[in-house]
Amino acid sequence: MNTWGQELRLSIFGESHGRAVGITVDGLPPGEEIDMEKVAGEMLRRAPGGSRYTTQRKEADTVEILSGLYEGKTTGFPVCGVIFNTDTRSGDYDTKLRPGHADWTALLKYGGNADMRGGGHFSGRLTAPLVFAGSLAKQVLARRGVFVFGRITRIGQVEDKGIPCDPKVWQMISGKPFPAVHETALQEEIMKAKTAGDSVGGIVEAVAFGLPGGLGEPFFGSMESAVSAMLFSVPAIKGVEFGDGFRLAALNGSQANDGLVLEDGEIRPLTNHNGGILGGITTGAPLIVRVAVKPTSSIPREQRTVDAGTMQPALIKVRGRHDPCIALRAVPVVEAAIALCALDRMLVARSVSI
Amino acid sequence: MNTWGQELRLSIFGESHGRAVGITVDGLPPGEEIDMEKVAGEMLRRAPGGSRYTTQRKEADTVEILSGLYEGKTTGFPVCGVIFNTDTRSGDYDTKLRPGHADWTALLKYGGNADMRGGGHFSGRLTAPLVFAGSLAKQVLARRGVFVFGRITRIGQVEDKGIPCDPKVWQMISGKPFPAVHETALQEEIMKAKTAGDSVGGIVEAVAFGLPGGLGEPFFGSMESAVSAMLFSVPAIKGVEFGDGFRLAALNGSQANDGLVLEDGEIRPLTNHNGGILGGITTGAPLIVRVAVKPTSSIPREQRTVDAGTMQPALIKVRGRHDPCIALRAVPVVEAAIALCALDRMLVARSVSI
Amino acid sequence: MNTWGQELRLSIFGESHGRAVGITVDGLPPGEEIDMEKVAGEMLRRAPGGSRYTTQRKEADTVEILSGLYEGKTTGFPVCGVIFNTDTRSGDYDTKLRPGHADWTALLKYGGNADMRGGGHFSGRLTAPLVFAGSLAKQVLARRGVFVFGRITRIGQVEDKGIPCDPKVWQMISGKPFPAVHETALQEEIMKAKTAGDSVGGIVEAVAFGLPGGLGEPFFGSMESAVSAMLFSVPAIKGVEFGDGFRLAALNGSQANDGLVLEDGEIRPLTNHNGGILGGITTGAPLIVRVAVKPTSSIPREQRTVDAGTMQPALIKVRGRHDPCIALRAVPVVEAAIALCALDRMLVARSVSI
Amino acid sequence: MNTWGQELRLSIFGESHGRAVGITVDGLPPGEEIDMEKVAGEMLRRAPGGSRYTTQRKEADTVEILSGLYEGKTTGFPVCGVIFNTDTRSGDYDTKLRPGHADWTALLKYGGNADMRGGGHFSGRLTAPLVFAGSLAKQVLARRGVFVFGRITRIGQVEDKGIPCDPKVWQMISGKPFPAVHETALQEEIMKAKTAGDSVGGIVEAVAFGLPGGLGEPFFGSMESAVSAMLFSVPAIKGVEFGDGFRLAALNGSQANDGLVLEDGEIRPLTNHNGGILGGITTGAPLIVRVAVKPTSSIPREQRTVDAGTMQPALIKVRGRHDPCIALRAVPVVEAAIALCALDRMLVARSVSI
Repeated sequence: MNTWGQELRLSIFGESHGRAVGITVDGLPPGEEIDMEKVAGEMLRRAPGGSRYTTQRKEADTVEILSGLYEGKTTGFPVCGVIFNTDTRSGDYDTKLRPGHADWTALLKYGGNADMRGGGHFSGRLTAPLVFAGSLAKQVLARRGVFVFGRITRIGQVEDKGIPCDPKVWQMISGKPFPAVHETALQEEIMKAKTAGDSVGGIVEAVAFGLPGGLGEPFFGSMESAVSAMLFSVPAIKGVEFGDGFRLAALNGSQANDGLVLEDGEIRPLTNHNGGILGGITTGAPLIVRVAVKPTSSIPREQRTVDAGTMQPALIKVRGRHDPCIALRAVPVVEAAIALCALDRMLVARSVSI
Repeated sequence: MNTWGQELRLSIFGESHGRAVGITVDGLPPGEEIDMEKVAGEMLRRAPGGSRYTTQRKEADTVEILSGLYEGKTTGFPVCGVIFNTDTRSGDYDTKLRPGHADWTALLKYGGNADMRGGGHFSGRLTAPLVFAGSLAKQVLARRGVFVFGRITRIGQVEDKGIPCDPKVWQMISGKPFPAVHETALQEEIMKAKTAGDSVGGIVEAVAFGLPGGLGEPFFGSMESAVSAMLFSVPAIKGVEFGDGFRLAALNGSQANDGLVLEDGEIRPLTNHNGGILGGITTGAPLIVRVAVKPTSSIPREQRTVDAGTMQPALIKVRGRHDPCIALRAVPVVEAAIALCALDRMLVARSVSI
Repeated sequence: MNTWGQELRLSIFGESHGRAVGITVDGLPPGEEIDMEKVAGEMLRRAPGGSRYTTQRKEADTVEILSGLYEGKTTGFPVCGVIFNTDTRSGDYDTKLRPGHADWTALLKYGGNADMRGGGHFSGRLTAPLVFAGSLAKQVLARRGVFVFGRITRIGQVEDKGIPCDPKVWQMISGKPFPAVHETALQEEIMKAKTAGDSVGGIVEAVAFGLPGGLGEPFFGSMESAVSAMLFSVPAIKGVEFGDGFRLAALNGSQANDGLVLEDGEIRPLTNHNGGILGGITTGAPLIVRVAVKPTSSIPREQRTVDAGTMQPALIKVRGRHDPCIALRAVPVVEAAIALCALDRMLVARSVSI
Repeated sequence: MNTWGQELRLSIFGESHGRAVGITVDGLPPGEEIDMEKVAGEMLRRAPGGSRYTTQRKEADTVEILSGLYEGKTTGFPVCGVIFNTDTRSGDYDTKLRPGHADWTALLKYGGNADMRGGGHFSGRLTAPLVFAGSLAKQVLARRGVFVFGRITRIGQVEDKGIPCDPKVWQMISGKPFPAVHETALQEEIMKAKTAGDSVGGIVEAVAFGLPGGLGEPFFGSMESAVSAMLFSVPAIKGVEFGDGFRLAALNGSQANDGLVLEDGEIRPLTNHNGGILGGITTGAPLIVRVAVKPTSSIPREQRTVDAGTMQPALIKVRGRHDPCIALRAVPVVEAAIALCALDRMLVARSVSI
């Protein structure tokens, strides 16, 4: 179902070529000032048309608030934010099933009733309301000293260099138009794919700094469960790992265990191979997540497919203005997802004791 | 919270050194024959003491059914299965925080009230009730032609060879005492760690064959969200990927897109880079999942830590009988998690139309 | 939280004097034709300004569909319907807490941040989106032979006469502008209160005909639990009973038990004191619900209260255009609530077997 | 489904004639001392065999704790409590559908697979685990000054006199073996039914004193929704009302509105017609609930029914040892339900702000 969360509850709706996409965010603490310029800034980070590495479609992505804000503050009532669709060209798609897309599975699930123009409710456009919801969460979190930053660590064959787990460094890298250390090499990888009439995948890494310890649950409802469930909602994400993730498979316990020391009377880990989560619960150390973003499915290359109308084999070149690498625009989406999970868990954590 | 699921609902309880661990499984279809020998077989796959690659603790892991079965069949009422704890040695643990364990985060969350003997409710022992629940789901699924098989694909530095995506091959490999193709090399990796007083991580891969298409939801509630949320509940799992997962980051769209063809009038993918899921919804092709299992945290090596009683720095060697590589016993757990998700989604899918 | 439902999921938002009120309805079966005139008809039944027994405020209550419908049919994606607010006069309310209203409890819960103009998110206006959602459910149900009808059975001291439990009779009475048998006496009771600068309560009874048997759950999730939870969400409802309800307290078992007979090979109850529900599960006999609606809290009489701004005692006359008896406009709301519960449970019931 | 709650989560299981009935209570605050004698006291209040007004079946109703308690305190982990069945006589029931029971609806829902001996999972015996869970909640609440008391206000044609809304008075009446003011008249009504081979209904009223204001939600999730959903889970309850409930239908707004005054700087209602809830949210005034309990369905009188085995008309006299009036034993059950709702909402309320 298209609802999510325990104390912070999201309900998302909309289709790529319908009237609007939007989201209802219920459970925000009352009395929180919301800076709409900051909201717009986040929307802009995700919006298409920002650079030649993204699609040339222009979408204003202006959020209209229908409820839940009053005189610039949250009221405690549900906030519904809507983004009306403007730049939609209905001719961009046909009845052939686009490989790598949900055209086929929508047919299996909804039997041909789904409005799949532009990807319908499966479209990456649905991440716009998520970024909006995340931008609210981020402002609430920032007041509690919690910050989430993301960056690109890989595009295709090129891996960016590592950076220290320091909020200032992350803020700087994350804030760049192309959020990477050595963006040129990564950008070249994108242009290479684009020029070849192809697309390319990438990896986004994100860190939440300042999270309190004790968030999450021991079994179902582990912090990893919550964050991964949200992240895997985002179209094109096919892998999620925490801390050293898959690299832990190659390590020994003596390497992977994070020894503990005292620092100003507080317990601190010597290393952070576990990415700030032990037993499903946050330690207070930076929460580290890495996600695999598959290459954009829409490519102007000839591919074998089936025509769902005639049920005949067909060839398809997906035309239209598509991102050659969706990973770039996924950065603010991943940040939003983590911020929303963090806020939900922080609200839940309050209720451990009364 | 320790409940999970939409139509099939699980509620798990118990601590490692308490009276029992157990689970309530609500929503099983009525009238399903349950073969208790098959249940016992699954429990045995997960049970410790099975080989020299696992801990020497002996736990019978016999499930007592308290409700929901009658004359060998499901009634439609909730099934509660309990495994009483027998072989517990309270002296195995002390007040020092064991690195890599939840001792520290339990302290943060429950303020010292948690019964953390043996890992408490965070213990890997909680996977026993999950395997029990999974064994019920597997029997229901088998009658509908759905089968889930897992295997070890990596231990430490050694990677096992690939196998064809064929249910017969997978069944054979998965059924081996050490579920891998070339088990010797992997076993050596475990013995090397054990001899060194250390532990080692691994990767488990699992495939669900025969799943109907159309399972899952477009956004929150994607099939990947459901499966990953369940898998990340399992202690020691730190990464989850579907299809080619993180390798998709290095691919082009022309490589990653699974072209479509007609086979006996049915749409079929030419390849399965997306692991049987597109847009969060199953295609009907084999669902492929890979999980990273970190090295066992309990190692008899001296590690730096903090004594939670005195709040002083301390050194710890974790004694007791521990698995040198927990990935091995994780195989049936991963299968159980996938089977439970598959059944829940199949039940939900029924309600798309009335 | 402002979400509801298991397979049919609702998320409601909006404030009386904000931009809009609305609702997202997720889980509607795909391919259902939606007649927007029927939707408008239901909206009109609830809308104010319809007669001199209701408030003279005029609200168009036109629903704008933002998502989930395509070419007049449900797509399977979430339907978001929005009703923009037009006729709002901000001067109608002041800082004194209106007795019987949520002004006081909003202050306790949200600490003065809630936008309580016109009742805010607590306003009866929130029943407009509920009626919209219900109008979708009703159209889906009608195709399956399920119909929900409501009527007024009491206003103040006057009780309307009983009617036979026959869908044709109920449809006729329910369709009247004032849905009662002898409306004159009831209307006089309303006018008496209105003339006296007062308001008056009432009772609404509703019946769902054609429901399949087997809906609901044995314990939590009983049909009564589902229906009552939804009905008690509706402002001003303070009592809910099924079948003979409170009158059952005065009966003997030999009177209250509904004996069973065979009719054309089908089991049928001789009577229906249990209102179509036994053990929390529908029998297939008409589901009968009765709800108590308290008198409108807004009355132009002087009442003792507290000024929340100055925290001083105060006197208040609530001005503005208010219904002298809210029970009248509650009829389509009660019908909507029952229809939504019925549809949710019918969708869930599909998943008992696979 | 048989799970309930947002922060305090319940999962109930068991059948009347199976191995056991039980419940898992997840989300209790850690570190709460649990007095097992108090638990036993509550179990005794509900247990059969207590007096000649209840069934003569003897059930020990001793709760075995499987998890979640350690050294007499809650750990924060789920508490699973099990009551093993002992005094079951399988010969008490046959294949004829007992009027007023769930035999018929179980057949509709589970198609003959349900183990309906003794009522199966629909049995009133399931209220034993609920009372256990409630007894935990009551101990947590008592430490915060919250107390729930219930009493019988009506049996058949006899209504007990009213009592002041004072915790001391309520505690005294509630603690009597027959919790009523003038128990003799009510007891006579029960004996009259019993002697006539019949049963009789009743009304239970309960009050929660000391609840904080601000609990509950504006729409779905209103305090009335939460409490009624829980109460209607309890077998035999067919009506629920808050404050003056159905009597509000006969009142004017000037009578029903609770005027507000200041008392030691705190806002207080002059009256409590709304039963401590406005707009779905607690005011802090006593929360008042009244429930209608239908007469016991099992009566030794000849009734018309259908034999589900032969699908032939039949006559049935329900033999066995049954309560002539189930309302009496419902008192601690109603208290438990309210206590559980109150605690869940208090835990949720913590998360409004962070």
